[in-house]
Amino acid sequence: MKKFHYTEVKKEKAEEGAVNTTVRWLIAKNTGAENFAMRLFEINSGGYSPYHKHPWEHEVFVLDGEGIVRGENCEEKISKGDVLFIPANENHQLKCTGKTLKFLCLIPYKR
Amino acid sequence: MKKFHYTEVKKEKAEEGAVNTTVRWLIAKNTGAENFAMRLFEINSGGYSPYHKHPWEHEVFVLDGEGIVRGENCEEKISKGDVLFIPANENHQLKCTGKTLKFLCLIPYKR
Repeated sequence: MKKFHYTEVKKEKAEEGAVNTTVRWLIAKNTGAENFAMRLFEINSGGYSPYHKHPWEHEVFVLDGEGIVRGENCEEKISKGDVLFIPANENHQLKCTGKTLKFLCLIPYKR
Repeated sequence: MKKFHYTEVKKEKAEEGAVNTTVRWLIAKNTGAENFAMRLFEINSGGYSPYHKHPWEHEVFVLDGEGIVRGENCEEKISKGDVLFIPANENHQLKCTGKTLKFLCLIPYKR
């Protein structure tokens, strides 16, 4: 078993197209995970992820902050305790509307 | 895309062997998830999960509360922001040592 606090994991700049956004890969292949990865994102004031799609799903849990999720046919406010399921191949974007939007976003390795 | 607050999902009694413990299946097959499931557990005062093992891993993020995780060779305190990776086939148990220990626990569907 591995146990650590999320702040022990190095914060990295998020992918191309993301603004004011960092990611921590909390549980990944180098942790021993073979099926899915757990990442913690922080989108800071004025920041957003790219409006994009890809052939894998997202499972999201909002830990803190205020934001907006934009989908193909909707735009909804999100805050602490909200859950998102974004299916594969569906356009999506997350934006911070407060100070810092913090959320877990999990993705599969096998698809 | 699906968006909801975790409290909108029905709280159920957790599996056999768990004491004072409830589970909400936040993202599951009926949500559209094919690769892994997101569950939210609450272990209340005096409660614990069974000391057991199974052929699939756990990815855990502690949301709130105080507790202990017991592994095959260790026992560690856990609290908000802690992350656990419990590999397949490794004995483990979580106990609440405060009022309510609340955590996400994700499991694979394909293994």
